[in-house]
Amino acid sequence: MRKKSSTKDLGLSSNERLSLKNKSFFAPKKYRNLKPKNFEIYTFHAGFKKKLDDLLIVIFDRPVRTTTVYSKTSMPSAPIIWDKINNKGYVRVLIVNSGNANAHTGKIGIKTINEYANYMSKYIGCKKSEILVSSTGIIGEMFHSKIIKNQINKINKKSKKTILDAAKAIMTTDTYPKIAIKTVRLKNNSLKIYGICKGSGMINPKMGTMLVYIFIEADLSKKILKKLLSDNLEDTFNSISNDSDTSTSDTLALFSTSNKKINWNINKNYEILTLSMFELMHDLSQQVVKDGEGINKLIKINILKSKSKKQAKNIGFSIVNSPLVKTAVSGEDANWGRVIAAIGKSQEKLNQNKIKVFFGKNLVCENGSVNKNINSKYLEKYMKNKTIEISVILNNGFVNHTVYGNDLSHEYIRINADYRS
Amino acid sequence: MRKKSSTKDLGLSSNERLSLKNKSFFAPKKYRNLKPKNFEIYTFHAGFKKKLDDLLIVIFDRPVRTTTVYSKTSMPSAPIIWDKINNKGYVRVLIVNSGNANAHTGKIGIKTINEYANYMSKYIGCKKSEILVSSTGIIGEMFHSKIIKNQINKINKKSKKTILDAAKAIMTTDTYPKIAIKTVRLKNNSLKIYGICKGSGMINPKMGTMLVYIFIEADLSKKILKKLLSDNLEDTFNSISNDSDTSTSDTLALFSTSNKKINWNINKNYEILTLSMFELMHDLSQQVVKDGEGINKLIKINILKSKSKKQAKNIGFSIVNSPLVKTAVSGEDANWGRVIAAIGKSQEKLNQNKIKVFFGKNLVCENGSVNKNINSKYLEKYMKNKTIEISVILNNGFVNHTVYGNDLSHEYIRINADYRS
Repeated sequence: MRKKSSTKDLGLSSNERLSLKNKSFFAPKKYRNLKPKNFEIYTFHAGFKKKLDDLLIVIFDRPVRTTTVYSKTSMPSAPIIWDKINNKGYVRVLIVNSGNANAHTGKIGIKTINEYANYMSKYIGCKKSEILVSSTGIIGEMFHSKIIKNQINKINKKSKKTILDAAKAIMTTDTYPKIAIKTVRLKNNSLKIYGICKGSGMINPKMGTMLVYIFIEADLSKKILKKLLSDNLEDTFNSISNDSDTSTSDTLALFSTSNKKINWNINKNYEILTLSMFELMHDLSQQVVKDGEGINKLIKINILKSKSKKQAKNIGFSIVNSPLVKTAVSGEDANWGRVIAAIGKSQEKLNQNKIKVFFGKNLVCENGSVNKNINSKYLEKYMKNKTIEISVILNNGFVNHTVYGNDLSHEYIRINADYRS
Repeated sequence: MRKKSSTKDLGLSSNERLSLKNKSFFAPKKYRNLKPKNFEIYTFHAGFKKKLDDLLIVIFDRPVRTTTVYSKTSMPSAPIIWDKINNKGYVRVLIVNSGNANAHTGKIGIKTINEYANYMSKYIGCKKSEILVSSTGIIGEMFHSKIIKNQINKINKKSKKTILDAAKAIMTTDTYPKIAIKTVRLKNNSLKIYGICKGSGMINPKMGTMLVYIFIEADLSKKILKKLLSDNLEDTFNSISNDSDTSTSDTLALFSTSNKKINWNINKNYEILTLSMFELMHDLSQQVVKDGEGINKLIKINILKSKSKKQAKNIGFSIVNSPLVKTAVSGEDANWGRVIAAIGKSQEKLNQNKIKVFFGKNLVCENGSVNKNINSKYLEKYMKNKTIEISVILNNGFVNHTVYGNDLSHEYIRINADYRS
């Protein structure tokens, strides 16, 4: 069933070809691209992928304060295990490879990281604990540390790359690179935030989501870094789901890259910063969900008037992860009965006679049954949109929450059954 | 996208055509078929479906002691709400229609049932509380009680049907009827158990699974009926999942149909009975999972040496419901990395270095990494089988549990995106 050479061979692997050929409808038309200050970006073709760049090395001018969150999986990859043991909250070098997840590779996987991390630390002159590593790609395959060490030897200030190159080098089945840049204008100061990430398959918000790196051009305390995360993670990366599968490798890291001192206690400076962070993280997480494997339609679920955020998220994910809802949206069928069934599956205690469901602005049911005055012509037309918004008013409290997912189409099966990933 | 008339029109609806055309590979080659004692079976074409019989009426000789379990959904269908209010544990008449679930139909849905149940109770001369009702099919559509009352008028002892006819009349997207018959031979006695059920989509074990009716030819106390359920439900209907969606209508009913008195305290009589019940319920639940929408392959997950049944089930379902595992099996790819990721997704605390994973008899990983001596020729050949057995030895305790599911293929998308259900 693996059609590894069914299309014209460009020297690319099947996944590389697949990504190039089937760019998501939602792919951005153009990108901002910059060479940020305070750190250098290098990318290489190390050989994990057939042809494209697959190794990112970011070197900071000095060890920068860093906060990370990892997948809640109980089968963490070697890089997650390694980072948790070694990293102490300061990073001089970030090393990310794509194409091999170094997951379920046992003691050898850890040994491999030790080898290339030690090599890097000697090369640059920093502590091993100041290295942060990530890997993404196929689970269960070993690789030799030489593959990375050989590229470290090629680091050359003359070949510095851009933030867009960095985003490209960490892609796997992503069909487009994901970057976001924000300028934060404070009272007496201004700074930039640069974010890159990758996603695509195995996206489910048990924590962070796949690989996300955010570089903030300021000297932030550990407390501020953690607060920025806790303020913004739940409503961004923890509110998306492509296929309800959770990765072994999910990692989000926040780097405080500059020594620019800013007083966060005055002039609403922190509010402005966290708002920019929200915008950036929302933007990146939207880019991830919009590039879900096989996506044809983006599904936005608004849960309104819930008794708690927990309840709203539980119901929202129950709907957006339901294969029957996902296939209905794929088929452009406003099958609200499946939405009701998915609400019920959450097992949240609700009075079904109080619930209203909308597809876009079209009320499809209320008072426990169908809206008889439904305009089916409008509804059918609405379902042809690329973004389908389903709003559920629970009338069970005062909390609103929105989650995002995508439809389940033949394309998802094609990517995951017909090709090896 | 709804191709309602794309194939030759036989007067059938798209779902009826779909079922007839695409019979599951696992469909039984032949059926045992009997007209049981102690109750009469009638089936009719009431008009919920286009052409096939869609109404089952079972009339017991006398009110029989009955135990039921229902879906744990928080959006129960009108029949479930009605049964819970009205039925007191004795049933004279069972009425089941297929093609319309009478779910999320508000007060009108309840009124409809009251009308046809009252009509039935007068017709046969029993209490309203001795009627049990179920409905399965599309959610959110109303129907008039006349549709059922008209058929009640046609009940005629000369047109009694068989147990196979009963199984056929409750089908929706099922591609074959599901029946099982067991003869229980006790020390001084013998009795039969007849079971019918239907399944197909929205199958996830939050309780019972879709519609299951089991008729036991003996006079059983409420206590024995409940014990038979609690002894056998977890390992049968609560250990299967087709698409992880939970129905609004799941119902399982156990009828004690005869006045044959048996002493269950002697001669291991109860052990023999419960063993037969297990065999029958296992058989029926296997028939359901083997007719999952779009099934190409049956997936059997054995979780071995777990610390508890709860942990084993959590991990088993995490694997068997993973879209990435399901698509890998569909693509005949022994992608054990996705199995590891799915184990991790369960968030159960485990030592990944102790886990062994087998595809069939092929050990694919141990000691936290790949089995290097794997015979990939054997493994590739194994993946071509129609039943794929994945065994995970956790080495975390002494409990074993098996769950069943199926692959995720283009056929599932075709049924649920391209056609309305």
